[in-house]
Amino acid sequence: MKFAEMTVAQFLDALASPDPTPGGGTAAAVAGAMGTSLLVMVTGLAKSNTNTDDEKAALAGAKLALQPLVATLTALADADAASFDEVMAAYRRPKATDEEKAARSAAIQQALQGATTVPLQTLRVCASAMPHAGTVAACGNRSAVSDVGVAIGLLEAAAAGAEANVRTNLGSVKDPQFTSAAADETGRLMTNVSREAAAARARL
Amino acid sequence: MKFAEMTVAQFLDALASPDPTPGGGTAAAVAGAMGTSLLVMVTGLAKSNTNTDDEKAALAGAKLALQPLVATLTALADADAASFDEVMAAYRRPKATDEEKAARSAAIQQALQGATTVPLQTLRVCASAMPHAGTVAACGNRSAVSDVGVAIGLLEAAAAGAEANVRTNLGSVKDPQFTSAAADETGRLMTNVSREAAAARARL
Repeated sequence: MKFAEMTVAQFLDALASPDPTPGGGTAAAVAGAMGTSLLVMVTGLAKSNTNTDDEKAALAGAKLALQPLVATLTALADADAASFDEVMAAYRRPKATDEEKAARSAAIQQALQGATTVPLQTLRVCASAMPHAGTVAACGNRSAVSDVGVAIGLLEAAAAGAEANVRTNLGSVKDPQFTSAAADETGRLMTNVSREAAAARARL
Repeated sequence: MKFAEMTVAQFLDALASPDPTPGGGTAAAVAGAMGTSLLVMVTGLAKSNTNTDDEKAALAGAKLALQPLVATLTALADADAASFDEVMAAYRRPKATDEEKAARSAAIQQALQGATTVPLQTLRVCASAMPHAGTVAACGNRSAVSDVGVAIGLLEAAAAGAEANVRTNLGSVKDPQFTSAAADETGRLMTNVSREAAAARARL
């Protein structure tokens, strides 16, 4: 069952269960989806009388950009759990012969790269949502100012959570090219997230 | 319908809709419930062989303390939306006569105090969950280290989101005793949250 189809109570129970999935990567993606959804809400709350046509167009543009990211993040919540399940399945492969050992190692490495790529994608999506928070803060209704603040905080927590999952899994990836490319991109994205979050807060 | 009974997809749609509720206060409470649930998960993932009896008892104690907070936070998600709906209902009361105006003002003030008390309670619950993150970080399985990190980040975002809602609503409350007591407690709780989050991260 997809997480989006679970009730909120079932999803929380699944997080709380001692099964390793769903874990932090899934929770980060859902938190990002919640933050993005709050921003979409505020794109629908223009300052009405005082909004210029440019401001209305900016809000409409932010809404168009943000809406599909909610579905992307909920899909990443599922992908994160699936990718971690694959890592565990790879570790459970037989290792009696040298051939089996080699195949198991290759499977583990492939699965770990997958389990790195998914939270990296979550981080990319949160980073692409954050610049719109500034637009929403500047052009949205002043009564929703705390909603935008909560959205920024949730997207930051989601990005940091995704980063933690990227770095944990990268620690076991042996391909140096993959590792350095992913680490570099993660660093750049986190810098962007912090900068855009600060810029958005300055417009609240 | 309670938010806990909605599917995750329905809940995200409700956040994204231009209706003012559910908004940031509800999202903050659910984020706190997600962070708390992740901590509960890791209380079930002892280091097994290496855990001392004291560590096992500490994890069991954290689990006992944290589990009921998940239900409290999901109930606060509903209470937050209900309290904001009451504020809006109070503003819609008739104001044709002096009597109506006075009754409307009193109703608005009462509703605003309610809409302050609910996120303050969310903040209290997040603050009471955070110290257990340090226990879970120190005694839980090392493989779950990023899950604990995500939990800490979600509880921080939830606390900050609750704080934003307390302060926004306090801005319209006229009772100086209520205002200063709530502002003081909010400040103290946020200091505790920051301190305990830093202490927990130091044990990761």
